[in-house]
Amino acid sequence: MAKLEGIFTPTLVPLDESGEINERELRRFISWLIEKGVHGLYPNGSTGEFTRFTEEERRRIIQIVVSENRGRVPILAGAAEANVKETLKACELYAKLGCQAVAIVSPIYYRLSPESVYAHFAEIARHTPIDLTLYNIPMFASPIDLPTITRLALEFPRVVGIKDSSGDVAFMMRMISAIRPQRPDFVFLTGWDCVLVPMMMAGANGGTNASSNAVPEVTRRVYELTKAGRYEDAMKWQQRLLELFDAMLNNFEFPDGFRAGADLRGFNFGRGRQPQTAKQRTSRTSLASTLECLVADFQLIDKPGTCAPRNMPPLEPLNSASANNSGNDPQMTDLVQRIMGELKTRGLV
Amino acid sequence: MAKLEGIFTPTLVPLDESGEINERELRRFISWLIEKGVHGLYPNGSTGEFTRFTEEERRRIIQIVVSENRGRVPILAGAAEANVKETLKACELYAKLGCQAVAIVSPIYYRLSPESVYAHFAEIARHTPIDLTLYNIPMFASPIDLPTITRLALEFPRVVGIKDSSGDVAFMMRMISAIRPQRPDFVFLTGWDCVLVPMMMAGANGGTNASSNAVPEVTRRVYELTKAGRYEDAMKWQQRLLELFDAMLNNFEFPDGFRAGADLRGFNFGRGRQPQTAKQRTSRTSLASTLECLVADFQLIDKPGTCAPRNMPPLEPLNSASANNSGNDPQMTDLVQRIMGELKTRGLV
Amino acid sequence: MAKLEGIFTPTLVPLDESGEINERELRRFISWLIEKGVHGLYPNGSTGEFTRFTEEERRRIIQIVVSENRGRVPILAGAAEANVKETLKACELYAKLGCQAVAIVSPIYYRLSPESVYAHFAEIARHTPIDLTLYNIPMFASPIDLPTITRLALEFPRVVGIKDSSGDVAFMMRMISAIRPQRPDFVFLTGWDCVLVPMMMAGANGGTNASSNAVPEVTRRVYELTKAGRYEDAMKWQQRLLELFDAMLNNFEFPDGFRAGADLRGFNFGRGRQPQTAKQRTSRTSLASTLECLVADFQLIDKPGTCAPRNMPPLEPLNSASANNSGNDPQMTDLVQRIMGELKTRGLV
Amino acid sequence: MAKLEGIFTPTLVPLDESGEINERELRRFISWLIEKGVHGLYPNGSTGEFTRFTEEERRRIIQIVVSENRGRVPILAGAAEANVKETLKACELYAKLGCQAVAIVSPIYYRLSPESVYAHFAEIARHTPIDLTLYNIPMFASPIDLPTITRLALEFPRVVGIKDSSGDVAFMMRMISAIRPQRPDFVFLTGWDCVLVPMMMAGANGGTNASSNAVPEVTRRVYELTKAGRYEDAMKWQQRLLELFDAMLNNFEFPDGFRAGADLRGFNFGRGRQPQTAKQRTSRTSLASTLECLVADFQLIDKPGTCAPRNMPPLEPLNSASANNSGNDPQMTDLVQRIMGELKTRGLV
Repeated sequence: MAKLEGIFTPTLVPLDESGEINERELRRFISWLIEKGVHGLYPNGSTGEFTRFTEEERRRIIQIVVSENRGRVPILAGAAEANVKETLKACELYAKLGCQAVAIVSPIYYRLSPESVYAHFAEIARHTPIDLTLYNIPMFASPIDLPTITRLALEFPRVVGIKDSSGDVAFMMRMISAIRPQRPDFVFLTGWDCVLVPMMMAGANGGTNASSNAVPEVTRRVYELTKAGRYEDAMKWQQRLLELFDAMLNNFEFPDGFRAGADLRGFNFGRGRQPQTAKQRTSRTSLASTLECLVADFQLIDKPGTCAPRNMPPLEPLNSASANNSGNDPQMTDLVQRIMGELKTRGLV
Repeated sequence: MAKLEGIFTPTLVPLDESGEINERELRRFISWLIEKGVHGLYPNGSTGEFTRFTEEERRRIIQIVVSENRGRVPILAGAAEANVKETLKACELYAKLGCQAVAIVSPIYYRLSPESVYAHFAEIARHTPIDLTLYNIPMFASPIDLPTITRLALEFPRVVGIKDSSGDVAFMMRMISAIRPQRPDFVFLTGWDCVLVPMMMAGANGGTNASSNAVPEVTRRVYELTKAGRYEDAMKWQQRLLELFDAMLNNFEFPDGFRAGADLRGFNFGRGRQPQTAKQRTSRTSLASTLECLVADFQLIDKPGTCAPRNMPPLEPLNSASANNSGNDPQMTDLVQRIMGELKTRGLV
Repeated sequence: MAKLEGIFTPTLVPLDESGEINERELRRFISWLIEKGVHGLYPNGSTGEFTRFTEEERRRIIQIVVSENRGRVPILAGAAEANVKETLKACELYAKLGCQAVAIVSPIYYRLSPESVYAHFAEIARHTPIDLTLYNIPMFASPIDLPTITRLALEFPRVVGIKDSSGDVAFMMRMISAIRPQRPDFVFLTGWDCVLVPMMMAGANGGTNASSNAVPEVTRRVYELTKAGRYEDAMKWQQRLLELFDAMLNNFEFPDGFRAGADLRGFNFGRGRQPQTAKQRTSRTSLASTLECLVADFQLIDKPGTCAPRNMPPLEPLNSASANNSGNDPQMTDLVQRIMGELKTRGLV
Repeated sequence: MAKLEGIFTPTLVPLDESGEINERELRRFISWLIEKGVHGLYPNGSTGEFTRFTEEERRRIIQIVVSENRGRVPILAGAAEANVKETLKACELYAKLGCQAVAIVSPIYYRLSPESVYAHFAEIARHTPIDLTLYNIPMFASPIDLPTITRLALEFPRVVGIKDSSGDVAFMMRMISAIRPQRPDFVFLTGWDCVLVPMMMAGANGGTNASSNAVPEVTRRVYELTKAGRYEDAMKWQQRLLELFDAMLNNFEFPDGFRAGADLRGFNFGRGRQPQTAKQRTSRTSLASTLECLVADFQLIDKPGTCAPRNMPPLEPLNSASANNSGNDPQMTDLVQRIMGELKTRGLV
């Protein structure tokens, strides 16, 4: 099986006028994401508002995504349900559907002790027919602390990775330092788009990044530049992604800003299930205009005339030769190796 | 309709060997609670582990409770579901079943802004066919702040009360001060058993108190003594209830300590759905012994020989003339009024 | 030595035009507080802004207060300094000056472990020549947890009490339950004015209450009514005190609202040492007008014409026969005892 | 004046047997740090326990450091005092002594609003005769939020930088993005050693890093490798520095672990002013042994026989040609430029 690497989009779910899953739009969106180059899909995550759908709807979302994907990219399916038994049922279904792995958030609502968090995942890990990644998001669910992650990683082969949304780079380093030497295949993904470069430099294998719903080209570019070792270039894009990420995260009720961002790319995500006041709806319209200018700065959409002029440092165009070419191109690889050899000979590195 | 007053038990749900709802035991428990004098039942609350059951199971729990209750006490049904639409479906069902009202927790998982919390409840309040109480439990769900509670109370007749589990007496005073003068029928319940007396002195109408699953006689006694104005006596019982409450709350993963407490009264609540490690199961056995001594101190069960001797200030027996007799007895009322008149005449009060 | 009981005013310090201690005004204020009936003075507390004065100034404040007091009420002197050695020097001086006890806050700035908090107080307790009270204010300094308080109370006779500003009534009950049976003389004071009645019902001996800088008559009335067992009357005053306390606490940068409140009583506390922006100064003027109406509602000052009319439940006048007369008056005591006897005879209590 | 760049050691203060400043040892330590290559000194920071010294002692510490330094490296002097007036007095003195700048922590103890934090620094900035850096350490003092930092940076030329100890890489990116385009000279330093590389990649100019008290060679190496663009090598050292930093930070009461680390380099820092229990002293001895093995892994001290064998990836020796040589060496620079030109010609970058 392919390793869980790269950018997995925590897929937003478009809704129709009556608040139901808009299957046609979801399919169109999934195919668009794949065409734009995301490495995988992660439906039923926090960005996918899994808690706002019913058990049945969560399954339907996975089924639509799997069906539209047609095996093109690996699918990491959010499988957290009300309890272990229901979660295992979901795991079985998603295994049958051919998902690559499931992602399971720490128990929600109650704040559990580390021992109970361990017991929860251990019980699932013992019985799941599909690989599972832990999902640590301390701002919303019981934290999975470092000793617990390590214990689970070292005891259960089915636990193949962690998606961490703490945004704490040092925590990522601690996890990798504790686990990778003993379990080199264990995968580390970050859910905090604005520090994707530092997380990858710390050893993360990629991310499940909400921003890739709106600007998959940019999130992917940040990933590829980092992967190619072009850290300074990566940080230029990272800084710009941060600005957009902050605008989508902070000015809206989560994940409505990402929905607004994806709408700008030609989709109709509808209103979302969380009711809004008239005041919020008015504010959303104005905020969406701000987003439009930020997305337009990436030259991914036309720039409205109303955007304030900005003096931006130039970035190479997104549609240029892809960033990771330089990393994978055999000619380039050869050249770099010869240069490094030369530098070593001269005692310079 | 009767007002929501007194002690509403946030009903625990017994499970059988295979982790399924144990209907026979649940029925036996419901009737026992009613016989022991609780004023109402509150199934599908946090103590009832509503998030660990499926949508279907949550409905079944209400149906069993309603059926066993046979109209004896009012039922406040926890009706929070994945989104507003599903919540309204539950409201409709629970209205049809004859529940007195529903309790709806603030949106879980995501941490919403006050404006969104308002929008959520407003949308439900506009469409619910049954009265609803807000449920504020900031440690687990988005807080409902004072301006939001006030706004909802003053705008929506269907919003008839709040259950607050913050444990903050000053916050209770602030809520009552902001709402009661304009909406005298609005009900204030506390979910924090250990300060039931102060909450009631501040004006609360009662509580939804987890301890009443284990010692309904004691929780009720605290309520009645306070209601009767016998504050000093009430505080003696309050102090003892605090000790037991703390033991059930702090030494176990919530709500397992309350399950252990109820087991001591002759029920078999089973293991709970949250998996436990072997270490936790061993610890639970020893902690249950400690609980047994505390419950025995109330003379509600036999005292095991292993309990450490304690030098406890005497409390009047729980089976004596009920505490609130003194408050409601016409002879007593008359006497008190005559005394007060006399004192006023003499300028002493 | 008298026990530390009743209302100890955490004394504000008036400043002159140039920001220096205004000794003349401080003396006038101290005598006014004593005349208004506070039971003690607590200079160099948080309300007294001890961290904004130099070591030398803190000593001078105590000296002025002691000198103006002329033995009329007990003085609890804030003695926290940069380290144990400096703190002990302050303890020695304040002992010589005749203070009743010192209050020492848990180490500030760094957040220490319970073991280090214990070590800090233990070292002081071993060497202090004057009784000390612990000062727990978890929002500003390292919390002193229950096991640490208990340990210190049971090991060191010089540790004679605790002032707790957590505002948590259940925590007060837990402290009293853990310590009082083994150390009946240990004193419990609350710094959270808005729940003074519940704290006293839980067993607290009084409070160090910032509101007594502005309305000593009201804070004292709440204390006395509670002490006299007139809980319902006490709660009426408590509710009103809460309103004023909230207005002084929440709308200003602490403790500037209390300074504004005291100014209304005819003092000139000056600007405070914490700089303010022009915007804050404008806002302060308008907020002070609001305070003026609230204080006027107690008929302690003239009501400005600009106050919005309020429909307030009547309270007995503050200048009527003092509340605690009824508790101490032998005639009253006798009457109450005869009535209680009669009630017991009839089996009613 | 030189810009504040590189590694500034937040200097620990050695104490003698009686807990007084050990001037001889402090001088020896200062000169050792300078010899080991730190770029500057930062006395009276949190690591320097400024709150545990008296006003007079804080001044003496600066005087000793300045005197021993003899102009060799720039000194950033912690100048926070009880209030603005006292702080300004310190600023004046430190300016006279020839310090490069002062660092001033946000007001401690009270938690102030952003407006008051602004007012505090604005008042100082208007009158200080020496450049000042803001010091943001939200776990100990009122946070300085992004709008406040920006406002101060853009309004006051005397505010020349910020030292941030939040450890949040995204926050660093936000600060730099908000301020640098408008104020390119503004300096950003991080106090969170374990993410020094990511912080510098985000644009930070260096750090005030406690670890440089114990292993100045390592902290400096991390800085230099990053500065030279050797990010992957830098991250190898960063990972190892994280391990040591965590051991010094988490297993001791702050900053005692750093004191223990510095002791291993041949100094005698004494006990510290925060009292310890016997249990803590025993634990400290055992923890210091663990530290000894970690520091020995850097080959900076002899390895005790008791250290567990570790299979560590090799690092180039610290005493090899300094890391930044490669960055500054003209031959190297030329070579790199020619290679990059070649790559561009071929369309590979």
